[in-house]
Amino acid sequence: MPDLPANLDEIRALFPHLPGPDLESGTAAALHERQLTKPAGALGRLEELAHWLATWQGRHPPRIDHPRTCVFAGNHGVSARGVSAYPAAVTAQMVRNFIDGGAAVNQLCRIVDADLRVYEMNLEQPTADFVDGPAMSEADCVRGLAYGMMAVEPGIDLLALGEMGIANTTSAAALCLALFGGHAEDWTGPGTGVVGAALDQKREVVAAAAERHRAAAGNPLELLRRLGGNELAAIAGAVLAARMGRVPVLLDGFTTTAAAAALYAADPRALDHCIVAHVSAEPGHKKLLDAIGKRALFDLGMRLGEASGATLAIGILKAAVACHNGMATFADAAVSGPV
Amino acid sequence: MPDLPANLDEIRALFPHLPGPDLESGTAAALHERQLTKPAGALGRLEELAHWLATWQGRHPPRIDHPRTCVFAGNHGVSARGVSAYPAAVTAQMVRNFIDGGAAVNQLCRIVDADLRVYEMNLEQPTADFVDGPAMSEADCVRGLAYGMMAVEPGIDLLALGEMGIANTTSAAALCLALFGGHAEDWTGPGTGVVGAALDQKREVVAAAAERHRAAAGNPLELLRRLGGNELAAIAGAVLAARMGRVPVLLDGFTTTAAAAALYAADPRALDHCIVAHVSAEPGHKKLLDAIGKRALFDLGMRLGEASGATLAIGILKAAVACHNGMATFADAAVSGPV
Repeated sequence: MPDLPANLDEIRALFPHLPGPDLESGTAAALHERQLTKPAGALGRLEELAHWLATWQGRHPPRIDHPRTCVFAGNHGVSARGVSAYPAAVTAQMVRNFIDGGAAVNQLCRIVDADLRVYEMNLEQPTADFVDGPAMSEADCVRGLAYGMMAVEPGIDLLALGEMGIANTTSAAALCLALFGGHAEDWTGPGTGVVGAALDQKREVVAAAAERHRAAAGNPLELLRRLGGNELAAIAGAVLAARMGRVPVLLDGFTTTAAAAALYAADPRALDHCIVAHVSAEPGHKKLLDAIGKRALFDLGMRLGEASGATLAIGILKAAVACHNGMATFADAAVSGPV
Repeated sequence: MPDLPANLDEIRALFPHLPGPDLESGTAAALHERQLTKPAGALGRLEELAHWLATWQGRHPPRIDHPRTCVFAGNHGVSARGVSAYPAAVTAQMVRNFIDGGAAVNQLCRIVDADLRVYEMNLEQPTADFVDGPAMSEADCVRGLAYGMMAVEPGIDLLALGEMGIANTTSAAALCLALFGGHAEDWTGPGTGVVGAALDQKREVVAAAAERHRAAAGNPLELLRRLGGNELAAIAGAVLAARMGRVPVLLDGFTTTAAAAALYAADPRALDHCIVAHVSAEPGHKKLLDAIGKRALFDLGMRLGEASGATLAIGILKAAVACHNGMATFADAAVSGPV
């Protein structure tokens, strides 16, 4: 884990030092793969996943013995503008539900045997309403980043990231609009279930926010500070610390990917150790995947957040590793190759 | 389990008696779902899966305590025409590999905790070359169906079906062409890796086979006898017996779906208790899914067969059940509903 940063410039200073792919481990994975008892390429993306894990864990064989799911929870001043179908109090209520084991992510972590950590980030102090000014001070944004960095503890070999925060799809949409351009309607969707006039209002808030912070165009971390939130900053921090610690990352849906996309905008290599687990039903997610050049693993029409898609994807990665590490070779099994 | 059939007419006689959906269990699932601590619909297809399982298991809550993966293996006379990249001996070699635990499906069964059964179907006696005449006698086809029916033992609550058989994508392509029309090239793909002139040859074999058995058009079970193989007949039998026994089914890739599609052609309701796990990279599979009106759960570019995709999908279904059965309700967790 890197030393914790004191300001955004210290975060910016990390980018030139992000570790690259471990090509030796990747090559070892590719050579091993071609000996396994199946036609070349027949496991499709599972083969790519094993190769990718080896490359970014920096070891062959890759292993997933200690996967962790992190859910960062934050509150947003902009929720007062009626951009969510649910009251802001639901963020804290859902954190309680995570701790009590009653949420979807709890059941999913049990199924894939992942360690679940829930990070409650100053819920009683929402960020400022970013239509009026920056959501966070630099100190608060850096604190959020550092908080996320601390989630990457030694021994973890796969990190699934997600969030909870009433109104945070509004924050994510404004951030995407500011980072990648387009129109507010490209990035604004129903979130928890906003429709009709409320959705129009949400779009207007997103457009006004991006306009308000135009001066920060081309400065992705500054946009994260102005339009993000505590949980978005923490996700960005966790992605960076995972890269430094050689821990591959699974990103969840729209809000999580938007937070990570601020890093991509700062350096397009910054998400090479990340896979987007699924295509969210939140309509901006597809466009965001295009913007950052990622192809999700699956599309099950999920739009819950709370790392639910990323956690489900841990099972797919475990399957990829199990096949790669456990299958017999043609020689071992005395199976004939192609004629 | 129904009594084992003596001839194809006894199979045909089952169709009017296939159990329908258990609407009471389905309704109970839908009512329970809407109380869970998440926005309505936010788990997307996982919600549909829990509902579907309840409907076809005929109980609420649905459960997956005893999933079984079945791999049926058969040999095909048509393999002598050079339609596969691998020699026919590989079928028996791979069966040995399944038994020794070295194949992909062994690793996948371990990950999702499924019971794996491998059915070696007279490998030393391939079916007849269907370009020259019917692949199977009626007695052999019925024996294959009955063999598959016997795989559905009491206590199983989810069945993942797959196959192994050198040259069986040729059989599947010919069966699809005969069942659903179109052109040989619509249904014929590389299988284990056939390309170039060999793929042209495979297409010609598929076209010639469908033409040779034109007289059986409109008689799906007769087409299964003429163009199928032991493992395809067994898959059809297992699908039927699962329906009678209220066991939901996951179908694997192109060959498995083609076998099941013969039942669909006989009665479009016959696959209502089946989900196709994934879209195979074998190009005919997409067209086949359209023909039988199914939408697969995921597309990871897999094309291995041996129930690999269906087994991976067991993990997704377990996740759906875990969320449905394990999540807190809004009332339990004191989480506020929409404003």
